Amino acid sequence: MMNASKRAVVLLSGGLDSATVLAIARSQGYELYALSFSYGQRHIVELDAARRVTAAIGVKDHRIAAIDLRVFGGSALTADIDVPKGRGTDEMSHGIPITYVPARNTIFLSFALAWAEVLGSSDIFIGVNALDYSGYPDCRPKFIAAFETMANLATRAGVEGRQALKVHTPLIALTKAQIIRKGIELGVDYGLTSSCYDPGPTGEPCGQCDSCLLRRKGFRGNGIEDPLVYRADKTSE
Amino acid sequence: MMNASKRAVVLLSGGLDSATVLAIARSQGYELYALSFSYGQRHIVELDAARRVTAAIGVKDHRIAAIDLRVFGGSALTADIDVPKGRGTDEMSHGIPITYVPARNTIFLSFALAWAEVLGSSDIFIGVNALDYSGYPDCRPKFIAAFETMANLATRAGVEGRQALKVHTPLIALTKAQIIRKGIELGVDYGLTSSCYDPGPTGEPCGQCDSCLLRRKGFRGNGIEDPLVYRADKTSE
Repeated sequence: MMNASKRAVVLLSGGLDSATVLAIARSQGYELYALSFSYGQRHIVELDAARRVTAAIGVKDHRIAAIDLRVFGGSALTADIDVPKGRGTDEMSHGIPITYVPARNTIFLSFALAWAEVLGSSDIFIGVNALDYSGYPDCRPKFIAAFETMANLATRAGVEGRQALKVHTPLIALTKAQIIRKGIELGVDYGLTSSCYDPGPTGEPCGQCDSCLLRRKGFRGNGIEDPLVYRADKTSE
Repeated sequence: MMNASKRAVVLLSGGLDSATVLAIARSQGYELYALSFSYGQRHIVELDAARRVTAAIGVKDHRIAAIDLRVFGGSALTADIDVPKGRGTDEMSHGIPITYVPARNTIFLSFALAWAEVLGSSDIFIGVNALDYSGYPDCRPKFIAAFETMANLATRAGVEGRQALKVHTPLIALTKAQIIRKGIELGVDYGLTSSCYDPGPTGEPCGQCDSCLLRRKGFRGNGIEDPLVYRADKTSE
């Protein structure tokens, strides 16, 4: 499928999932407009990863929108609450973790909608995942479908009856292992990405938060070595 | 109707409509959490008005979230495009004006949703208006209904089956004249508010943009004097 002249807004955190989504959108022929956020996240090094990923994959434009989600608190990712470590996948699959940021995907998608409208784009890509999704309500398919319906009523395009906005979720039904396999097929260099919720000052991943644990499980599932070096491994040596 | 222990997040621009909404939410017994935005608007003086209004009406908390909507451009309210002046109400009622900010209400409501979730509130108030709404797609009742549906899938409360989130739009079916009458009944001091899209450096309203024209028409409709002094009147003296 080629859409040479079509523009896509791709939400890019700098993590493994969104880097894969960027490569998928490129493989479908979209002109890429990557959107990242500086939102008071404790893992701000992911924005460096986002810059490395856009440089490697090639995008038409990359913007980093500054929004202050700390203004409300309520999450271990933005407030002064400890990130949980060393949880089993059973533990992760029950309940909503403290790393959940209230309404984060709603806010991120709303900004993507604004940029898509300015660009005349009707395609937004987001790397949400319903299998290894770590319990976040705003990663569920029915949330995405409801956002799409709302978005088509929110904008000029909706009023003027132009092409409907589509929220693409190419990872939604994939396991972490399948995502990694797909990315490797598309040439993604996962050594450029950053997934950790609680990285060291130089960006070194902890290896023990939910995000690190899911990522490492995904690499193991493919029998591949994760190109990142984890702090947990170094200290246990 | 009294909801003494209930918290409401009220979107407050500092304009006439949202000041009236704040007074309506107070009259219904809610504990008030006012939310304003610093979003690169050229009419930044409205935030001073928002502070005056919260002080006069009385709120539990007032937060101003910094978000940069200029990152995308595309509107006369945030970019370097002239604000249209002196349009008739016929002109205003056709098409979407250049002062429309892409996805603005979607973004504002998403932030309100985040704060509501942190507060454990299930009530958001917004001063949208479908009659004198000046052609904005995200002021329509069906947009609000779709946002509400999406919001109830986006959050912890949605997953855990707690009380559904409600987006209150008490002005949606009122004319500007009816809004002003309602606010005066509730004791709103409209001299504290700021409605102009293109105010002077000291906050003086232009009197000629769509927002000023609708406001003045509303006061005339009640046979009342607007407490604000307009630049257009002064220069024509």
